[in-house]
Amino acid sequence: MNAEIIAVGTELLMGQIANTNGQFLSQELARLGVNVYFQTVVGDNESRMRQSLELARSRADLIICTGGLGPTQDDLTKDVLAAYLGRGLIMHEPSLRYMTEFFESRGVVMVDSNKRQAHMLEGSDPLPNDTGLAVGIALTQDGTHYMLLPGPPKEMKPMFLNYGVQWLRGVMKDEVPLVSRMLKFAGIGESLLEDRLLDLIRGQTDPTIAPYAKEGEVAVRLTTRAASEREGLAAIAPVEAEIRRRVGEFIFAERDVPLETIVLELLKTSGRTLAVAESCSGGQLSDMLTAIPGSSQTFLGGVVCYSNALKNKLIGVPLDVLEGEGAPGAVSAQAAGLLAEGVRDRTGADFGLSITGVAGPDPSEGKPVGLVFVGLAERGKAAETFELKLSGNRETIKLRASKSALTKLWQRLKTV
Amino acid sequence: MNAEIIAVGTELLMGQIANTNGQFLSQELARLGVNVYFQTVVGDNESRMRQSLELARSRADLIICTGGLGPTQDDLTKDVLAAYLGRGLIMHEPSLRYMTEFFESRGVVMVDSNKRQAHMLEGSDPLPNDTGLAVGIALTQDGTHYMLLPGPPKEMKPMFLNYGVQWLRGVMKDEVPLVSRMLKFAGIGESLLEDRLLDLIRGQTDPTIAPYAKEGEVAVRLTTRAASEREGLAAIAPVEAEIRRRVGEFIFAERDVPLETIVLELLKTSGRTLAVAESCSGGQLSDMLTAIPGSSQTFLGGVVCYSNALKNKLIGVPLDVLEGEGAPGAVSAQAAGLLAEGVRDRTGADFGLSITGVAGPDPSEGKPVGLVFVGLAERGKAAETFELKLSGNRETIKLRASKSALTKLWQRLKTV
Repeated sequence: MNAEIIAVGTELLMGQIANTNGQFLSQELARLGVNVYFQTVVGDNESRMRQSLELARSRADLIICTGGLGPTQDDLTKDVLAAYLGRGLIMHEPSLRYMTEFFESRGVVMVDSNKRQAHMLEGSDPLPNDTGLAVGIALTQDGTHYMLLPGPPKEMKPMFLNYGVQWLRGVMKDEVPLVSRMLKFAGIGESLLEDRLLDLIRGQTDPTIAPYAKEGEVAVRLTTRAASEREGLAAIAPVEAEIRRRVGEFIFAERDVPLETIVLELLKTSGRTLAVAESCSGGQLSDMLTAIPGSSQTFLGGVVCYSNALKNKLIGVPLDVLEGEGAPGAVSAQAAGLLAEGVRDRTGADFGLSITGVAGPDPSEGKPVGLVFVGLAERGKAAETFELKLSGNRETIKLRASKSALTKLWQRLKTV
Repeated sequence: MNAEIIAVGTELLMGQIANTNGQFLSQELARLGVNVYFQTVVGDNESRMRQSLELARSRADLIICTGGLGPTQDDLTKDVLAAYLGRGLIMHEPSLRYMTEFFESRGVVMVDSNKRQAHMLEGSDPLPNDTGLAVGIALTQDGTHYMLLPGPPKEMKPMFLNYGVQWLRGVMKDEVPLVSRMLKFAGIGESLLEDRLLDLIRGQTDPTIAPYAKEGEVAVRLTTRAASEREGLAAIAPVEAEIRRRVGEFIFAERDVPLETIVLELLKTSGRTLAVAESCSGGQLSDMLTAIPGSSQTFLGGVVCYSNALKNKLIGVPLDVLEGEGAPGAVSAQAAGLLAEGVRDRTGADFGLSITGVAGPDPSEGKPVGLVFVGLAERGKAAETFELKLSGNRETIKLRASKSALTKLWQRLKTV
């Protein structure tokens, strides 16, 4: 099966938002074994939407539209598809009831235009919206499958994952499904990883091997077609074993989770707690950790010791280490070690993890942009420190410093 | 003039990356007064690329392609356009020379495939690449303008801004350019802002009034066509004055900068410093502030006091405020006030700003998800506290809590 994704919305064409729905759906469709040959973005304009539908029908088996299901006069997607397919619009009563209750419970009058959000095409299947008001729909006509999803990602994603995927599996039931496995890596860069696996990647036939990098992490996805999950994983196993033989020490997960999830799990399993001292990363490491629900069980918090004064006042690093002629300075292995030990001791955590460096854009203490020190101090032990040379702009260096610090902690935890 | 943006790359169709180039170019073209009616994403496939070019030529005056200018066999964009327009490929000698020197200086052998990156279409204008190797090109044929840009944003953006825009201004010289002005708002929600400006937005003709919201901030862009910046701003002035009369108190900037930039500027101007105590925002406020280069001059840092133990140990909030029967709890106005005062006093900052609340997904202390308290303590004064009821998921609540805290500080600073 091949698909085309049509994102509807003038705000996309004005550049006010990026078409992240296109990315999300492409990823999920790849996982289902559906090839996406085109993504299109079109404005809230009837004739151009119709033109896009016609074109997509001429070249795709599945057309997924996102956006334009809301209550306003700009929201045209259902009307345009209904006219295009020659079907009427009918009311989806459960959605209408939910909406009526929703407005009543808030003491707000529901205006008529809101009811449009409960519209379906005649003969279509409803896709419930658990996080919003507009109902989605799916239908098949003349051998082409159509799916309409809302534009806001927080509505589109759960609708697609919880209902859309199931609907698609139904219409794809005669196709051999894809089975895939994700390996996630820490402590090895994308190019080195590719280099170590180059012959496998080049010689790949089945399973396919797709390496990729995003947000400071590197992953490899192994994919095959098989009648069952078990058969698929059996076909993947020998290739996975070869990858593990070569670079297994860097694998932190066999599913698509960030490194912080695994670090928090390892801490929880071993019943230990973490506190951090962040200088150049400026709170990003804490922000990452606290993005994971339940992190409060093992992550106590920490100090964003951006200024030298705070490194001294809040963590107790002696000022003569940080400043003055001949001092190692704030960007030094010594400072990183004292920060890690200090934050561990002042918070009572089992682990203290520290980051201090130069995020740029300008050098600091005569030290170059990208020089970063990480300190890791376990209870009862002296801190270990690591020197990193990171590349990129300020934003990238903050991110890479945070992920590198997590990597050092993960390497310690997994050997325990 | 109207434009179509074609992003080339199988990695986009696999969902490995989002088409942020499409967003960036749409935004910049809107600024130039070019309407974008379609964005298309197509894979590294000759016949589908050609099909996209043909379609775009049938409906657009300007076609901008991003991606596919690299050295590999997958990089086809120049070849496909050359064949489509019936032009040959020639070598851009300055790019070739630069590339040769680049490889020599690194002691790396330049393989032949690299030279493809210096190709141009016959009769095209080169667009220099200051941050990479592949040269871009622009040309006009049969009344349609074509521009080819590299895929990596760090090459595409500077090439477009430094050379592409100038080339476009040349071919658009007979069109009256756009002049626009951005007003950014804090402390007022998108729907309330729209409501207060509804008659202006509905009745808009010239200038146009476009409200939008992203990343916890709300903005309005006023746009008109005028021969000069001065004339344009003069045409915008009466509408801007009317907007200011209605909602001027919420405007924090007349340019596209985040609230943290303005807060840091106000602190710097008044010679004062800031420290923060973050509970439910978990480091995000610090991360935002330290994303701004130069923030270290006024932002000292702070404490991510995620656990009650740290609120007590690092900031000195009495445990009997945080825990136990009848205690206000960590999510309370009282705790927010003590956190703000405590972090101010322990760091010696002029302002202490605190955030404590329930980010979810589960309630805490029997308090609902989204309940957040902000504390603001100025040197020598008792803290002022604010109760917020935020909606959204964990990520959104962390973001909105951080922006709301910044808003409270901004409101204080601007009245000084």
